[in-house]
Amino acid sequence: MQELKNRIREEGVIRQGNVLKVDSFLNHQLDMQLLHTLAEEFATRFENEEINKVLTIETSGIAIACMVADLMQVPVVIARKTKTKNMNGELYKKTVTTVTKDEYDLYVAKQYLGEGDKVLLIDDLLAHGKALEGLSDMVMESGAELVGIGVAIEKSFQVGSKLIRDKDIRLESLVIVDDLDWRSNKVVFRGDND
Amino acid sequence: MQELKNRIREEGVIRQGNVLKVDSFLNHQLDMQLLHTLAEEFATRFENEEINKVLTIETSGIAIACMVADLMQVPVVIARKTKTKNMNGELYKKTVTTVTKDEYDLYVAKQYLGEGDKVLLIDDLLAHGKALEGLSDMVMESGAELVGIGVAIEKSFQVGSKLIRDKDIRLESLVIVDDLDWRSNKVVFRGDND
Repeated sequence: MQELKNRIREEGVIRQGNVLKVDSFLNHQLDMQLLHTLAEEFATRFENEEINKVLTIETSGIAIACMVADLMQVPVVIARKTKTKNMNGELYKKTVTTVTKDEYDLYVAKQYLGEGDKVLLIDDLLAHGKALEGLSDMVMESGAELVGIGVAIEKSFQVGSKLIRDKDIRLESLVIVDDLDWRSNKVVFRGDND
Repeated sequence: MQELKNRIREEGVIRQGNVLKVDSFLNHQLDMQLLHTLAEEFATRFENEEINKVLTIETSGIAIACMVADLMQVPVVIARKTKTKNMNGELYKKTVTTVTKDEYDLYVAKQYLGEGDKVLLIDDLLAHGKALEGLSDMVMESGAELVGIGVAIEKSFQVGSKLIRDKDIRLESLVIVDDLDWRSNKVVFRGDND
Protein backbone atom coordinates (compact mmCIF):
# COMPACT_ATOMS: atom_id res chain seq x y z
CA MET A 1 0.00 0.00 0.00
CA GLN A 2 2.03 2.86 -1.37
CA GLU A 3 -0.10 5.64 0.16
CA LEU A 4 0.46 4.36 3.70
CA LYS A 5 4.19 3.81 3.08
CA ASN A 6 4.47 7.40 1.86
CA ARG A 7 2.73 8.79 4.93
CA ILE A 8 4.93 6.75 7.27
CA ARG A 9 8.05 7.97 5.42
CA GLU A 10 6.87 11.59 5.49
CA GLU A 11 5.44 11.80 9.01
CA GLY A 12 6.51 8.73 10.96
CA VAL A 13 8.98 9.28 13.77
CA ILE A 14 11.27 6.49 14.96
CA ARG A 15 12.32 6.31 18.60
CA GLN A 16 14.97 4.16 20.18
CA GLY A 17 13.61 0.72 21.05
CA ASN A 18 11.92 0.06 17.68
CA VAL A 19 9.10 2.50 18.34
CA LEU A 20 7.36 3.91 15.25
CA LYS A 21 5.22 6.96 16.03
CA VAL A 22 2.35 7.57 13.61
CA ASP A 23 0.54 10.04 15.85
CA SER A 24 -0.10 12.64 13.17
CA PHE A 25 -2.38 10.50 11.01
CA LEU A 26 -3.22 7.14 12.64
CA ASN A 27 -3.18 7.25 16.48
CA HIS A 28 -3.70 10.63 18.08
CA GLN A 29 -4.78 12.71 15.10
CA LEU A 30 -6.62 10.63 12.49
CA ASP A 31 -6.59 11.41 8.78
CA MET A 32 -10.05 10.15 7.88
CA GLN A 33 -9.36 10.22 4.14
CA LEU A 34 -6.39 7.89 4.64
CA LEU A 35 -8.40 5.69 7.03
CA HIS A 36 -11.10 5.43 4.40
CA THR A 37 -8.54 4.20 1.87
CA LEU A 38 -7.13 1.66 4.34
CA ALA A 39 -10.64 0.45 5.15
CA GLU A 40 -11.44 -0.01 1.45
CA GLU A 41 -8.33 -2.14 1.07
CA PHE A 42 -9.35 -4.39 4.01
CA ALA A 43 -12.90 -4.65 2.65
CA THR A 44 -11.52 -5.75 -0.73
CA ARG A 45 -9.11 -8.28 0.74
CA PHE A 46 -11.82 -9.87 2.88
CA GLU A 47 -14.76 -9.62 0.47
CA ASN A 48 -16.80 -12.79 -0.13
CA GLU A 49 -15.94 -13.96 3.39
CA GLU A 50 -19.42 -13.29 4.76
CA ILE A 51 -17.99 -11.50 7.78
CA ASN A 52 -20.79 -10.43 10.14
CA LYS A 53 -18.76 -8.70 12.87
CA VAL A 54 -15.59 -6.62 13.16
CA LEU A 55 -13.78 -6.94 16.49
CA THR A 56 -11.13 -4.53 17.72
CA ILE A 57 -9.28 -3.45 20.87
CA GLU A 58 -9.59 -0.08 22.53
CA THR A 59 -8.21 2.51 21.79
CA SER A 60 -6.15 2.76 18.62
CA GLY A 61 -7.99 0.11 16.62
CA ILE A 62 -11.45 1.62 16.95
CA ALA A 63 -11.27 4.19 14.15
CA ILE A 64 -10.09 1.82 11.40
CA ALA A 65 -12.41 -0.93 12.63
CA CYS A 66 -15.39 1.43 12.36
CA MET A 67 -14.48 2.47 8.83
CA VAL A 68 -14.11 -1.18 7.75
CA ALA A 69 -17.38 -2.22 9.41
CA ASP A 70 -19.19 0.74 7.88
CA LEU A 71 -18.11 -0.41 4.40
CA MET A 72 -19.01 -4.04 5.17
CA GLN A 73 -22.33 -2.95 6.79
CA VAL A 74 -21.72 -5.03 9.90
CA PRO A 75 -21.40 -4.04 13.59
CA VAL A 76 -18.15 -3.43 15.49
CA VAL A 77 -17.45 -4.96 18.88
CA ILE A 78 -14.82 -3.25 21.03
CA ALA A 79 -12.81 -5.42 23.42
CA ARG A 80 -12.48 -3.35 26.59
CA LYS A 81 -9.42 -3.14 28.81
CA THR A 82 -11.42 -2.22 31.88
CA LYS A 83 -14.54 -3.80 33.25
CA THR A 84 -16.95 -0.97 33.93
CA LYS A 85 -19.87 -1.23 36.30
CA ASN A 86 -22.09 -1.18 33.22
CA MET A 87 -20.67 -4.46 31.91
CA ASN A 88 -22.57 -6.73 34.22
CA GLY A 89 -23.67 -9.54 31.95
CA GLU A 90 -21.54 -12.61 31.33
CA LEU A 91 -18.13 -11.70 29.97
CA TYR A 92 -15.29 -13.36 28.10
CA LYS A 93 -12.01 -12.41 29.74
CA LYS A 94 -8.45 -12.85 28.48
CA THR A 95 -5.39 -11.82 30.41
CA VAL A 96 -2.71 -10.30 28.18
CA THR A 97 0.92 -10.35 29.34
CA THR A 98 2.96 -7.75 27.50
CA VAL A 99 6.65 -8.12 26.60
CA THR A 100 7.47 -5.89 29.54
CA LYS A 101 5.56 -8.38 31.76
CA ASP A 102 2.74 -5.98 32.47
CA GLU A 103 -0.65 -7.63 32.64
CA TYR A 104 -4.08 -6.43 31.67
CA ASP A 105 -7.41 -8.03 30.84
CA LEU A 106 -9.58 -7.86 27.73
CA TYR A 107 -13.36 -8.14 28.14
CA VAL A 108 -16.11 -8.84 25.64
CA ALA A 109 -19.73 -9.42 26.65
CA LYS A 110 -20.77 -12.96 25.74
CA GLN A 111 -23.96 -11.76 24.10
CA TYR A 112 -21.95 -10.02 21.33
CA LEU A 113 -19.64 -12.89 20.32
CA GLY A 114 -20.32 -16.59 19.81
CA GLU A 115 -21.34 -19.45 17.60
CA GLY A 116 -22.49 -18.41 14.15
CA ASP A 117 -20.34 -15.26 14.09
CA LYS A 118 -17.74 -14.83 11.33
CA VAL A 119 -15.31 -12.37 12.82
CA LEU A 120 -12.67 -10.07 11.33
CA LEU A 121 -10.16 -8.68 13.84
CA ILE A 122 -8.85 -5.20 12.98
CA ASP A 123 -6.04 -3.23 14.64
CA ASP A 124 -3.71 -0.42 13.69
CA LEU A 125 -0.38 -2.01 14.56
CA LEU A 126 1.05 -5.50 14.96
CA ALA A 127 4.26 -5.58 16.99
CA HIS A 128 4.55 -8.18 19.76
CA GLY A 129 0.99 -9.25 19.08
CA LYS A 130 0.05 -10.26 22.61
CA ALA A 131 -3.33 -8.52 22.59
CA LEU A 132 -4.27 -9.82 19.13
CA GLU A 133 -3.16 -13.32 20.14
CA GLY A 134 -5.35 -13.19 23.27
CA LEU A 135 -8.29 -11.83 21.33
CA SER A 136 -7.90 -14.53 18.64
CA ASP A 137 -8.03 -17.18 21.35
CA MET A 138 -11.12 -15.52 22.80
CA VAL A 139 -12.89 -15.57 19.41
CA MET A 140 -12.09 -19.24 18.86
CA GLU A 141 -13.06 -20.23 22.40
CA SER A 142 -16.38 -18.40 21.99
CA GLY A 143 -17.35 -20.74 19.17
CA ALA A 144 -17.21 -17.96 16.57
CA GLU A 145 -15.17 -18.35 13.40
CA LEU A 146 -12.09 -16.14 13.12
CA VAL A 147 -11.93 -15.27 9.42
CA GLY A 148 -8.70 -13.32 9.75
CA ILE A 149 -6.80 -10.39 11.17
CA GLY A 150 -6.18 -7.11 9.37
CA VAL A 151 -3.55 -4.64 10.59
CA ALA A 152 -2.46 -1.41 8.98
CA ILE A 153 1.20 -1.75 9.96
CA GLU A 154 3.05 -4.99 10.71
CA LYS A 155 6.53 -4.84 12.25
CA SER A 156 7.93 -8.12 10.93
CA PHE A 157 11.01 -8.12 13.17
CA GLN A 158 8.90 -8.36 16.32
CA VAL A 159 7.25 -11.61 17.30
CA GLY A 160 3.56 -10.80 16.69
CA SER A 161 3.22 -11.84 13.05
CA LYS A 162 4.90 -15.19 13.76
CA LEU A 163 2.57 -15.77 16.74
CA ILE A 164 -0.47 -15.17 14.53
CA ARG A 165 0.71 -17.14 11.50
CA ASP A 166 1.79 -20.09 13.70
CA LYS A 167 -1.87 -20.38 14.69
CA ASP A 168 -2.80 -20.69 10.99
CA ILE A 169 -4.74 -17.44 11.14
CA ARG A 170 -4.96 -15.44 7.94
CA LEU A 171 -3.10 -12.17 8.50
CA GLU A 172 -3.43 -9.22 6.13
CA SER A 173 -1.02 -6.35 6.75
CA LEU A 174 -1.33 -3.25 4.58
CA VAL A 175 2.36 -2.46 4.97
CA ILE A 176 5.13 -4.59 6.46
CA VAL A 177 8.01 -2.81 8.19
CA ASP A 178 11.17 -4.96 8.05
CA ASP A 179 13.50 -2.57 9.83
CA LEU A 180 13.59 0.72 11.72
CA ASP A 181 16.73 2.80 12.23
CA TRP A 182 16.16 5.52 14.82
CA ARG A 183 19.54 7.15 14.20
CA SER A 184 18.78 7.95 10.55
CA ASN A 185 14.95 7.89 11.00
CA LYS A 186 14.85 5.33 8.16
CA VAL A 187 12.02 2.82 7.65
CA VAL A 188 12.67 -0.27 5.51
CA PHE A 189 9.44 -1.67 4.04
CA ARG A 190 8.89 -5.15 2.65
CA GLY A 191 9.04 -4.87 -1.13
CA ASP A 192 11.33 -1.86 -1.20
CA ASN A 193 13.97 -3.84 -3.01
CA ASP A 194 11.67 -5.82 -5.34
CA MET B 1 -34.14 11.96 16.73
CA GLN B 2 -36.79 9.29 16.71
CA GLU B 3 -34.51 6.46 15.53
CA LEU B 4 -32.20 6.88 18.51
CA LYS B 5 -35.13 7.18 20.94
CA ASN B 6 -36.56 3.93 19.58
CA ARG B 7 -33.27 2.08 19.99
CA ILE B 8 -32.86 3.34 23.56
CA ARG B 9 -36.43 2.26 24.36
CA GLU B 10 -35.94 -1.17 22.76
CA GLU B 11 -32.42 -2.01 23.93
CA GLY B 12 -31.42 0.45 26.65
CA VAL B 13 -31.12 -0.94 30.15
CA ILE B 14 -31.53 1.28 33.21
CA ARG B 15 -29.57 0.56 36.38
CA GLN B 16 -30.00 2.04 39.80
CA GLY B 17 -28.09 5.32 40.15
CA ASN B 18 -29.35 6.85 36.88
CA VAL B 19 -27.18 4.61 34.70
CA LEU B 20 -28.40 4.11 31.13
CA LYS B 21 -26.68 1.19 29.40
CA VAL B 22 -26.56 1.40 25.61
CA ASP B 23 -23.94 -1.31 25.17
CA SER B 24 -25.71 -3.19 22.41
CA PHE B 25 -25.54 -0.40 19.81
CA LEU B 26 -23.47 2.57 20.99
CA ASN B 27 -20.71 1.63 23.47
CA HIS B 28 -19.51 -1.96 23.40
CA GLN B 29 -21.17 -3.21 20.22
CA LEU B 30 -21.62 -0.46 17.64
CA ASP B 31 -24.42 -0.40 15.09
CA MET B 32 -22.61 1.35 12.26
CA GLN B 33 -25.81 2.07 10.34
CA LEU B 34 -27.22 3.93 13.35
CA LEU B 35 -23.91 5.71 13.92
CA HIS B 36 -23.97 6.82 10.30
CA THR B 37 -27.44 8.30 10.81
CA LEU B 38 -26.34 10.10 13.99
CA ALA B 39 -23.26 11.44 12.22
CA GLU B 40 -25.36 12.79 9.34
CA GLU B 41 -27.54 14.64 11.85
CA PHE B 42 -24.49 16.26 13.49
CA ALA B 43 -23.05 17.15 10.09
CA THR B 44 -26.34 18.83 9.15
CA ARG B 45 -26.66 20.73 12.43
CA PHE B 46 -23.11 22.07 12.18
CA GLU B 47 -22.91 22.65 8.42
CA ASN B 48 -21.64 26.05 7.23
CA GLU B 49 -19.54 26.33 10.40
CA GLU B 50 -16.23 25.70 8.57
CA ILE B 51 -15.19 23.16 11.19
CA ASN B 52 -11.70 21.87 10.43
CA LYS B 53 -11.25 19.40 13.30
CA VAL B 54 -13.38 17.02 15.36
CA LEU B 55 -12.15 16.41 18.89
CA THR B 56 -13.27 13.54 21.10
CA ILE B 57 -12.33 11.63 24.24
CA GLU B 58 -11.22 8.02 24.35
CA THR B 59 -12.94 5.55 24.30
CA SER B 60 -16.68 5.77 23.69
CA GLY B 61 -16.63 8.98 21.65
CA ILE B 62 -14.20 7.78 19.00
CA ALA B 63 -16.62 5.89 16.74
CA ILE B 64 -19.20 8.67 16.36
CA ALA B 65 -16.45 11.30 16.08
CA CYS B 66 -14.88 9.36 13.21
CA MET B 67 -18.18 9.04 11.35
CA VAL B 68 -18.85 12.78 11.73
CA ALA B 69 -15.32 13.74 10.66
CA ASP B 70 -15.51 11.39 7.69
CA LEU B 71 -18.66 13.17 6.47
CA MET B 72 -17.13 16.60 7.12
CA GLN B 73 -13.83 15.53 5.52
CA VAL B 74 -11.77 16.78 8.43
CA PRO B 75 -9.39 14.98 10.83
CA VAL B 76 -10.25 13.65 14.28
CA VAL B 77 -8.10 14.33 17.34
CA ILE B 78 -8.49 11.94 20.27
CA ALA B 79 -7.88 13.33 23.76
CA ARG B 80 -6.01 10.58 25.60
CA LYS B 81 -6.47 9.60 29.22
CA THR B 82 -2.97 8.21 29.54
CA LYS B 83 0.29 9.77 28.52
CA THR B 84 2.15 7.10 26.56
CA LYS B 85 5.89 7.11 26.04
CA ASN B 86 5.16 7.97 22.39
CA MET B 87 3.57 11.30 23.34
CA ASN B 88 6.75 13.19 23.92
CA GLY B 89 6.09 16.52 22.27
CA GLU B 90 4.49 19.42 24.09
CA LEU B 91 1.09 18.52 25.51
CA TYR B 92 -2.02 20.24 26.74
CA LYS B 93 -3.15 18.65 29.98
CA LYS B 94 -6.44 18.99 31.85
CA THR B 95 -7.21 17.27 35.11
CA VAL B 96 -10.79 16.02 35.30
CA THR B 97 -12.40 15.46 38.69
CA THR B 98 -15.39 13.14 38.41
CA VAL B 99 -18.50 13.36 40.60
CA THR B 100 -17.14 10.45 42.62
CA LYS B 101 -14.00 12.57 43.22
CA ASP B 102 -11.76 10.35 41.09
CA GLU B 103 -9.19 12.25 39.09
CA TYR B 104 -7.69 11.62 35.69
CA ASP B 105 -5.88 13.68 33.09
CA LEU B 106 -6.69 14.42 29.46
CA TYR B 107 -3.83 14.96 27.03
CA VAL B 108 -3.70 16.47 23.55
CA ALA B 109 -0.47 17.18 21.69
CA LYS B 110 -0.07 20.90 21.12
CA GLN B 111 0.75 20.40 17.46
CA TYR B 112 -2.78 19.14 16.74
CA LEU B 113 -4.79 21.92 18.40
CA GLY B 114 -4.35 25.66 18.42
CA GLU B 115 -4.98 29.04 16.85
CA GLY B 116 -6.84 28.89 13.54
CA ASP B 117 -8.64 25.65 14.39
CA LYS B 118 -12.45 25.57 14.41
CA VAL B 119 -13.26 22.64 16.61
CA LEU B 120 -16.35 20.47 17.07
CA LEU B 121 -16.37 18.33 20.20
CA ILE B 122 -18.22 15.01 19.84
CA ASP B 123 -19.08 12.45 22.53
CA ASP B 124 -21.61 9.71 22.98
CA LEU B 125 -23.10 10.74 26.32
CA LEU B 126 -23.43 13.90 28.40
CA ALA B 127 -24.11 13.22 32.08
CA HIS B 128 -22.04 15.10 34.65
CA GLY B 129 -20.01 16.64 31.84
CA LYS B 130 -16.72 16.93 33.69
CA ALA B 131 -14.61 15.58 30.81
CA LEU B 132 -16.37 17.70 28.18
CA GLU B 133 -16.03 20.76 30.40
CA GLY B 134 -12.30 20.17 30.81
CA LEU B 135 -11.84 19.57 27.12
CA SER B 136 -13.81 22.72 26.26
CA ASP B 137 -11.50 24.72 28.51
CA MET B 138 -8.51 23.09 26.81
CA VAL B 139 -9.77 24.06 23.34
CA MET B 140 -10.36 27.66 24.37
CA GLU B 141 -7.02 27.96 26.17
CA SER B 142 -5.26 26.58 23.08
CA GLY B 143 -6.42 29.57 21.06
CA ALA B 144 -8.68 27.42 18.88
CA GLU B 145 -12.34 28.30 18.40
CA LEU B 146 -14.84 25.90 19.98
CA VAL B 147 -17.73 25.87 17.51
CA GLY B 148 -19.84 23.59 19.65
CA ILE B 149 -20.41 20.26 21.30
CA GLY B 150 -22.45 17.40 19.88
CA VAL B 151 -23.58 14.49 22.03
CA ALA B 152 -25.80 11.59 21.07
CA ILE B 153 -27.54 11.35 24.45
CA GLU B 154 -27.94 14.17 27.01
CA LYS B 155 -29.18 13.33 30.49
CA SER B 156 -30.75 16.65 31.39
CA PHE B 157 -31.22 15.86 35.09
CA GLN B 158 -27.47 15.62 35.65
CA VAL B 159 -25.32 18.71 35.80
CA GLY B 160 -23.36 18.41 32.51
CA SER B 161 -25.65 20.25 30.15
CA LYS B 162 -25.95 23.17 32.58
CA LEU B 163 -22.15 23.33 32.94
CA ILE B 164 -21.77 23.51 29.15
CA ARG B 165 -24.59 25.98 28.49
CA ASP B 166 -23.42 28.24 31.35
CA LYS B 167 -20.21 28.69 29.40
CA ASP B 168 -22.25 29.88 26.39
CA ILE B 169 -21.15 26.89 24.36
CA ARG B 170 -23.52 25.68 21.67
CA LEU B 171 -24.69 22.21 22.68
CA GLU B 172 -26.48 19.89 20.25
CA SER B 173 -27.95 16.73 21.78
CA LEU B 174 -29.61 14.23 19.45
CA VAL B 175 -31.90 13.03 22.23
CA ILE B 176 -32.48 14.50 25.68
CA VAL B 177 -33.35 12.11 28.50
CA ASP B 178 -35.37 13.92 31.18
CA ASP B 179 -35.88 10.98 33.51
CA LEU B 180 -34.89 7.37 34.07
CA ASP B 181 -36.82 4.94 36.24
CA TRP B 182 -34.83 1.80 36.90
CA ARG B 183 -37.71 0.03 38.61
CA SER B 184 -39.94 0.12 35.53
CA ASN B 185 -37.02 0.44 33.03
CA LYS B 186 -38.77 3.54 31.68
CA VAL B 187 -37.01 6.38 29.84
CA VAL B 188 -38.69 9.77 29.58
CA PHE B 189 -37.45 11.78 26.60
CA ARG B 190 -37.76 15.50 26.08
CA GLY B 191 -40.61 16.05 23.64
CA ASP B 192 -42.52 12.93 24.58
CA ASN B 193 -45.45 14.99 25.76
CA ASP B 194 -45.36 17.62 23.02
